[in-house]
Amino acid sequence: MQVKNKNIFKFRSDCPISSALDLIGDKWSILIIRDLCFFGKRTFSELSLSDEKIAANILADRLKKLEEYGILTKGKSPENKKTVLYTITQKGLDFVPVILDLVLWGARHLDSHISAEAKQFAKKIKKDKDAVIMEVNKKLASTGQLR
Amino acid sequence: MQVKNKNIFKFRSDCPISSALDLIGDKWSILIIRDLCFFGKRTFSELSLSDEKIAANILADRLKKLEEYGILTKGKSPENKKTVLYTITQKGLDFVPVILDLVLWGARHLDSHISAEAKQFAKKIKKDKDAVIMEVNKKLASTGQLR
Repeated sequence: MQVKNKNIFKFRSDCPISSALDLIGDKWSILIIRDLCFFGKRTFSELSLSDEKIAANILADRLKKLEEYGILTKGKSPENKKTVLYTITQKGLDFVPVILDLVLWGARHLDSHISAEAKQFAKKIKKDKDAVIMEVNKKLASTGQLR
Repeated sequence: MQVKNKNIFKFRSDCPISSALDLIGDKWSILIIRDLCFFGKRTFSELSLSDEKIAANILADRLKKLEEYGILTKGKSPENKKTVLYTITQKGLDFVPVILDLVLWGARHLDSHISAEAKQFAKKIKKDKDAVIMEVNKKLASTGQLR
């Protein structure tokens, strides 16, 4: 794959599972995608305020990588040129099914630990996963949060 | 969550996505689950021979963690007591939907890089993901590769 900075990315194998994980196979990258797709976060400051308490240097590193891989874009806010906004791309949004399956796994196997809200969300996914995916797509597209 | 070694596991938040990733949110853990579920691997030596060239110390560490989390079990081979076998549990097998979605993502976005065999597999998943999940379940159960 050719990434934005013109380096050729080295995949570890030609397995699609391993290759997808070469790009986003760490906890923090997936949580950034979660925050952009489900929680409407757009700025570095918003992204740094998640419950999981990501360290600023890790957040900066992962945002840079995800931008290089074409999973998000970085741009200026039309309202305030000083504000940098991160926007998910279709390539990033296509990770939503993976994330929804993680919700289902969590709801099934970590039941006593996860929030009631998350359990409700898992029920919704279980009922109609495709509808949830479509809803996320539509919401982001209609609010200009998709590139 | 109480894990096998009696320590209480500390989750970073009550989000099911983050919590699932607290347990298996690194590339290598997911590849070990892939190898047990799809490639019939059972021993340390087989698991160390993947195309991705996992380092022996990382493999040992991840196997230990996955055993603690109840995602696989470790036991002796009935044929040869000296051989240690790793066996996926239902909890581990329930990650298969996540893995299949990674295949679909890879097939869609890393098309020029992944193998023809993987592309065929992606087509099969796209056609009927539930059937693929059921097939993996049945195969592992019928060959005693599921605890």
